[in-house]
Amino acid sequence: MTNHTTEHSTRGAYVNEGEEFNRDTTYIEDRIVADPTASTDGEHQLWAAEAGTYRLVAARACPWANRALIVRRLLGLEDAISVGLPGPTHDARSWTFDLDEGGKDPVLGIERIQDAYFKRFPDYPRGITVPAIVHVESGAVVTNNFPQITEDFAKEWGAFHREGAPDLWPAEQEDEMRQVMKRIYTEINNGVYRCGFAGSQEAYNKAYQRLWDALDWVEERLATRRYLMGDHITEADVRLFTTLVRFDPVYFGHFKCNRQPLTTMPNLWGYARDLFQTPGFGDTVDFQQIKEHYYIVHEDINPTGIVPAGPQLENWLSDHGREALGGSPFNTDAGATAPGPVREGEYVTPGHNPLYPA
Amino acid sequence: MTNHTTEHSTRGAYVNEGEEFNRDTTYIEDRIVADPTASTDGEHQLWAAEAGTYRLVAARACPWANRALIVRRLLGLEDAISVGLPGPTHDARSWTFDLDEGGKDPVLGIERIQDAYFKRFPDYPRGITVPAIVHVESGAVVTNNFPQITEDFAKEWGAFHREGAPDLWPAEQEDEMRQVMKRIYTEINNGVYRCGFAGSQEAYNKAYQRLWDALDWVEERLATRRYLMGDHITEADVRLFTTLVRFDPVYFGHFKCNRQPLTTMPNLWGYARDLFQTPGFGDTVDFQQIKEHYYIVHEDINPTGIVPAGPQLENWLSDHGREALGGSPFNTDAGATAPGPVREGEYVTPGHNPLYPA
Repeated sequence: MTNHTTEHSTRGAYVNEGEEFNRDTTYIEDRIVADPTASTDGEHQLWAAEAGTYRLVAARACPWANRALIVRRLLGLEDAISVGLPGPTHDARSWTFDLDEGGKDPVLGIERIQDAYFKRFPDYPRGITVPAIVHVESGAVVTNNFPQITEDFAKEWGAFHREGAPDLWPAEQEDEMRQVMKRIYTEINNGVYRCGFAGSQEAYNKAYQRLWDALDWVEERLATRRYLMGDHITEADVRLFTTLVRFDPVYFGHFKCNRQPLTTMPNLWGYARDLFQTPGFGDTVDFQQIKEHYYIVHEDINPTGIVPAGPQLENWLSDHGREALGGSPFNTDAGATAPGPVREGEYVTPGHNPLYPA
Repeated sequence: MTNHTTEHSTRGAYVNEGEEFNRDTTYIEDRIVADPTASTDGEHQLWAAEAGTYRLVAARACPWANRALIVRRLLGLEDAISVGLPGPTHDARSWTFDLDEGGKDPVLGIERIQDAYFKRFPDYPRGITVPAIVHVESGAVVTNNFPQITEDFAKEWGAFHREGAPDLWPAEQEDEMRQVMKRIYTEINNGVYRCGFAGSQEAYNKAYQRLWDALDWVEERLATRRYLMGDHITEADVRLFTTLVRFDPVYFGHFKCNRQPLTTMPNLWGYARDLFQTPGFGDTVDFQQIKEHYYIVHEDINPTGIVPAGPQLENWLSDHGREALGGSPFNTDAGATAPGPVREGEYVTPGHNPLYPA
């Protein structure tokens, strides 16, 4: 087989005929923490959280990178951690900074995020993935461990959070939250890939059943809860949202997750719009880049490379009716507020998102 | 390029890169008429309508063949014209009778419909298509001219119609009906293929726009009319139905006709269910064969050959509410009635259609 790629990695995640898709989850697992000397983490190499020291590289197209973009916005880390935005497509080697002037990231000065991996490990053998956090001065990747990145944004970067930043990891809910997020990861975030990259009809059929069992579970869970953990948004919502926002535009057709469109799941569709309309969520989403990414990069699934014109997206701005369940995205009793406007230079391209008409 | 195929033809309808899809519409254009000696048709070779003389070969998967299956049922021609049913997939040479015992059509005794074409013209150079009407005694194809086949069923086979057969070509509406059917053919029946077989992003974008312009037109037309021509079903409805019933299962994802699902077009979705629930329409539809056909035969579009498990289909049996517009499928004032039960041996496989649960 030729070089197969996922949206996330550029190596080896696709499957051989007859096999089930298994994600390569071996990463550069360093962490950036508030105080490396005080940390109890003896397993990882630790770096110190400092403003202006790191750059988040996150393609808008990629759902795992999208998480980091949302959390950075929600917590107001824009001044502390700059962002580099690779374009939607990539070749077998790497995501590239093809949207930037001269095809180079203006801060790192590189054309491919691969360069930052090789700066760290010249013989880096694993997937070149986003999100990645790069140490600006050395130009080397510090971590591409995506679930840890957003958790550390919340827990280790507190000194740099904006005023009114929400608590995305409420301590009293963390145990349940981890269970919920684990199931969302294995069954939904990754479940759509298990359908799309299935190597046989049998593997696909099983994957489809697993996915829809899990979507039925969250559909039911959201019947009585405005957000996954209750009245306010948490990291769990960020993680579910990035899959839901890609569901009808990509996963439904391209990955054959087509029991029914998201728009026909009343609770999930209301919930997805509720989040989309919350500052920090919808304003990070570039539907055009999302579609281009999957439909152009996955040549094995869509050899024509033609990108669908649909689905219509205006309905993402329609009334979601979720206020009836009570709650609010930000826990105002605890002093949380919505993030302010998107930073200059970080807006989604007009026409690529119904929030920003062409 | 390798041998490209459409659901209808097995030759040459697919397009080269950058080009727009154009259907090969050159057929064996003989006609079967009530009285060849009295006919005013001097252009075509004419055969006489006689019971037991011809066999309709029509794959359930194929929308053009599906038309003939529906009209045969509506008019009650089952006793006059037997039916052969090729399986959903075919190779580059021909549709095959792989569902029949021993892989041979029990009446014609052939494995491939191609054989009946070659019996007629040993060097037949064009697409091997269904529907085809075969002269049983000689084993040769009489016609594969699909729009003429159903028109002649209605107008030339009157002596063999069942009691209560509807008038599918009301004379006073024929001029308008032909205009409506022409637009449905070029813009919708064929329009979905223009999207799916587009050879470039630009050709696809144009095709998508044309298709949705036409779907918006029928959506609006059906807001005030229960059926396309008014209060009762006509051939025009048969022709639109066969595309609509394939829309969400195939055209939406596989052909990228994905502005919105059929189920979100209120008039078209109500109308499609109204027809589906009318004897003669839904009872001819094999959703599983339809999906297998497109997803397995079009290797250029779906190289994995994996057939989607969705969409859910139970909703085809839900209340359509179209009675509120008045009218009725069959014009009872003119003595028309619904067709009787499906003939033994002609039922759709249980589990392939919500009318026939597994």
